[in-house]
Amino acid sequence: MAQMDPDAVAKAFVEHYYSTFDNNRVGLAGLYQEASMLTFEGQKILGVQNIVAKLTSLPFQQCKHNISTVDCQPSGPASGMLVFVSGNLQLAGEEHALKFSQVSLSLSVDFS
Amino acid sequence: MAQMDPDAVAKAFVEHYYSTFDNNRVGLAGLYQEASMLTFEGQKILGVQNIVAKLTSLPFQQCKHNISTVDCQPSGPASGMLVFVSGNLQLAGEEHALKFSQVSLSLSVDFS
Repeated sequence: MAQMDPDAVAKAFVEHYYSTFDNNRVGLAGLYQEASMLTFEGQKILGVQNIVAKLTSLPFQQCKHNISTVDCQPSGPASGMLVFVSGNLQLAGEEHALKFSQVSLSLSVDFS
Repeated sequence: MAQMDPDAVAKAFVEHYYSTFDNNRVGLAGLYQEASMLTFEGQKILGVQNIVAKLTSLPFQQCKHNISTVDCQPSGPASGMLVFVSGNLQLAGEEHALKFSQVSLSLSVDFS
């Protein structure tokens, strides 16, 4: 298969991540690994199980992420990728959306 | 020398970076390398010379970054560090500050 454009890979990853977050939050487990770390509002959370426990215990259930920007760049020697996302988070029953931004660093991405 | 706390290293790096940005923007050259990449509002800029040319050609001269949050986490096998900064950017002569966020990924940091 032809090598994909990193920007296209990043955009697809971001759409998949937030679609999973909004529709099946426990499914985010498939996007983290044992060595993954999530820093959430200053708190460092290590490992897929702890990360999913944190994300599923956030004080809201229904939510919808609307993506404004996706920036990516290659990182490191092993085809890693750094992705920076910004957007709005709409919570059910809330009039105003929250602004959010998130960074994702994958140390090795299979572009094939 | 004792090993430093990564959060303290990140905070010191951020303070140094934005102090240099605000007071001696060409001095940022010392904080990038030939293989460094800057993604700036969607534009990918490679190499220390191009990065500094971009940063020194921004359409404002006097500015002051006020940092709101600094999050960091270790990354990769070679004591790398991922730093996520958010804050406000006050431009000379402008009433309202701009919000900004920036990510810095260092593949290898000397904590010693």
